[in-house]
Amino acid sequence: MAASKKTTGAAQSAFRGFNARHSPAIDRFIASFFKGKIRSAQFPFIADCYRDLSAYCLRPGKRLRPLVLIAAYLGYGGDPKRIGEITPIAASLELMHSFLLVQDDVIDRSDVRRGGKALHVLMGERYRGAVNNEHVGNDVALILGDVLFANAIEIISSARIDGDVRTEFMKLFANTYELTAWGQILDIMHSLPADIAPGNGVSTSIGLLKTAYYTVLNPMCMGHVLSGRVRGVAGLVERVPIMQFALPLGMAFQLRDDILGVYGKKKDTGKPSDSDIAEGKLTLFVELAVSSLSDAERKRFISRFSAPRKTAKDIAAIRDVFDRTGVREIATDRLGVLIRQAREALPGCRLREAERKVFDSLVDEVARV
Amino acid sequence: MAASKKTTGAAQSAFRGFNARHSPAIDRFIASFFKGKIRSAQFPFIADCYRDLSAYCLRPGKRLRPLVLIAAYLGYGGDPKRIGEITPIAASLELMHSFLLVQDDVIDRSDVRRGGKALHVLMGERYRGAVNNEHVGNDVALILGDVLFANAIEIISSARIDGDVRTEFMKLFANTYELTAWGQILDIMHSLPADIAPGNGVSTSIGLLKTAYYTVLNPMCMGHVLSGRVRGVAGLVERVPIMQFALPLGMAFQLRDDILGVYGKKKDTGKPSDSDIAEGKLTLFVELAVSSLSDAERKRFISRFSAPRKTAKDIAAIRDVFDRTGVREIATDRLGVLIRQAREALPGCRLREAERKVFDSLVDEVARV
Repeated sequence: MAASKKTTGAAQSAFRGFNARHSPAIDRFIASFFKGKIRSAQFPFIADCYRDLSAYCLRPGKRLRPLVLIAAYLGYGGDPKRIGEITPIAASLELMHSFLLVQDDVIDRSDVRRGGKALHVLMGERYRGAVNNEHVGNDVALILGDVLFANAIEIISSARIDGDVRTEFMKLFANTYELTAWGQILDIMHSLPADIAPGNGVSTSIGLLKTAYYTVLNPMCMGHVLSGRVRGVAGLVERVPIMQFALPLGMAFQLRDDILGVYGKKKDTGKPSDSDIAEGKLTLFVELAVSSLSDAERKRFISRFSAPRKTAKDIAAIRDVFDRTGVREIATDRLGVLIRQAREALPGCRLREAERKVFDSLVDEVARV
Repeated sequence: MAASKKTTGAAQSAFRGFNARHSPAIDRFIASFFKGKIRSAQFPFIADCYRDLSAYCLRPGKRLRPLVLIAAYLGYGGDPKRIGEITPIAASLELMHSFLLVQDDVIDRSDVRRGGKALHVLMGERYRGAVNNEHVGNDVALILGDVLFANAIEIISSARIDGDVRTEFMKLFANTYELTAWGQILDIMHSLPADIAPGNGVSTSIGLLKTAYYTVLNPMCMGHVLSGRVRGVAGLVERVPIMQFALPLGMAFQLRDDILGVYGKKKDTGKPSDSDIAEGKLTLFVELAVSSLSDAERKRFISRFSAPRKTAKDIAAIRDVFDRTGVREIATDRLGVLIRQAREALPGCRLREAERKVFDSLVDEVARV
C-alpha cells in the first residue's frame, strides 16, 4: 500500500474541512477502544502491547480510508444522525491500515514510519536484551499487526448495524485485505529484481492491487453499503460508476506516492525520500527508465538498482538515470491523465452535493505533487 | 499453538469414528473453496499461490478444531440436517490453524511442517532466484498466512446462518486469534531466554493462551453458539461448564505436545523430535529442570539452552538434564491431573450422549503419550 503522506495546499478545501470535522471522532474511538483493551488485559505485557498499538495507530496521518468511507456513507444518503455508529466501523479501516504499515515495514526493512520508529524497531528495542533472538522485534511486530486485524473484525462485529449490512461489509473487508495482500506479494516478487523486462507493466498491476482497491474503491463501496439505501442488484449496478471514479483515483494515489518516493521531502512523507530506490521497488519510474536504456546501460542500471545495500553514490546514479530519461515528466503526465479520468467519472457517482465536493477536493489533493 | 500430531490408539474410538465421518467433508469444502479461488484468480501468480495454499491446508492433520466445533454443535442440539452449512464454518477454523502454522514456522525458523516443507521454505525456493532478497520466502509466506485469515472471514461471512449467530461467532473468531497471538508473543518473549527465573510459571500461561483457548475452548463455544439453542445470559451460563472441561483439556493438549516435543517420534509428530529444545522453547520441562538445579548448573544449562544454534552434543546434554531431574515423570503426572479434571467436568457440559462419548474419547487421545 502507499505510505501515508501529509497533504499540502489550500487550508480551506472541502476535503480538509471534512477531515477536520470527522478525524477527531475517528481518533477518539481508536483511543477509547485501546483504553478498553488496556483496562481488560489479562497480563501486564498485553497492556504494554496495547499501549504501543494505540500510540502507533494514533500517530499523525491522513485517516484517508476512514474518511473516504464516511464521505461515501453520507454522500449516498446515509443518516447523519447515525454517524456515531459508523465512526467505529470507519476506524476499523485505520486499524487495517496500521496492520499493513507494520507488515510493510518488516518486509521492506524500513525503520521509520509516520515520523517515528517502525513498530518492529520499537519491539526489538524492548525485547532484544531478554532473548537470544535477533529477529525478536520482527516476530513480535508481525503478530501485533495481526492483532490489529483481529481488533478490526471485533469492532465490525460489535457495531450496531443491520445484520445483512454487516455481512456485506465484512465480505468487502476480507476482500480488501486479500487484494492488498496480492499487491504486496506482487511487489515483493519484483523488488530488488534480478532482471526487469522492459514494458511488462507490472508496476500498474502493483498499484492497482496494492493501493487502488484498498485506498479508494473498497472504502467507497463500504460507505455505499453502510448507507443502506441500495441493496441487491441495484446496489451492484451503483458500484460501476464508483469503480470508474475510484480506480483511476487510487492509481493516481499510488503514482503520486511513487513520485514523492523519489522527489518528496522527508517532512512531507515521514520517510527518507530515497526509500523506494533503496528498497529497489519496481515503480513506473523504474519501468520507464529501463525501457529507454540500451542493453548495456540497462544491465548496469539493474545491477545497481537491485543491490540490497546501496551507497549514496548508487542512489545518485539511479536518480541520474531517472533525470536523463525524463521519466518524472512522463509520470507526471500520466498522473494528470488519471486525475482527469477520475474527475470526469465523479458526477456519474451521483453523490450528494456536499460529499461530491469532498471527493472533488480529494482529487485536487492527489493531483498536487 | 501446538503442532498437529497424528493420534495413536484403538481404531474404533468414538473420536476416530467422528473424525472419519466428518473430516472428509471438511477437506472437500477446503478443496472446493480454493478451486473457486484458483478459477477466479485475476493474475496467474494468484492461482499459483492458491494452489500452494490448498495443498498446504489439505496436508494430513487431525482437523481437531473443526471437529471439536462440529461435535459441540451436534452435542448442544444443533440440527444434523444443517451440517452442510456448518461444515464450511468449521473449515474456517482449519484455515486459521494453517495461518498460525505458517506464522509459527517463520518465527521459529522451522523448515518442516506436517511432514512436508514449511510454506516459507517452498516460497523461498520459488522466488529466491528472481529477486535479491534472501528473506523473500518469509515475506511471501507471512502474507499468504494472512490471506488465509481473510479467506476464513470470507467463508464465515458467506455461510447461510442467522445474522445474530454470525455476529456472535465472528466475535469469538476474532477473540480466538487475539488470545492465540498473545500466547505467541509470550512464547517469543521467553524463547532462547537470556535467563529463566525458577518457578515463575510462564509455561502455564503460554499453554493457556497459545493452545487451550484456540484448540478446545473457543471451538466448543463456537459450536455451542452455532447450535442456536441457547442465547443471551442462558448461553453465557452454559459456557461455565464448557470452560471447566475445555481449559484443562487444552492445557493437557499443550503439555502432551511438550512431552512429544522432547520424546516423540518424527513419524508421529511430523517434525524432528528435538525441535522444542533446538528452538529454546520455555516448556514446563525447562521450568521444572531449572528449579531443581544449583545456581552454577542452572547458569550452564541456560547458556546451552539459549544458544540459537545447538550441536547434537548440546541437545544431548539438555536431554540429560531432563532425565536427571526427573521432569518427564512430573510432566506426565501433571498431564494425568489435567486429564482427570477434564474428565470430571465433562458430564457438567450436558452434551447429547453421542457427542459426550466423542469428547470423552478425545480426552483418551490426549491422555496417551
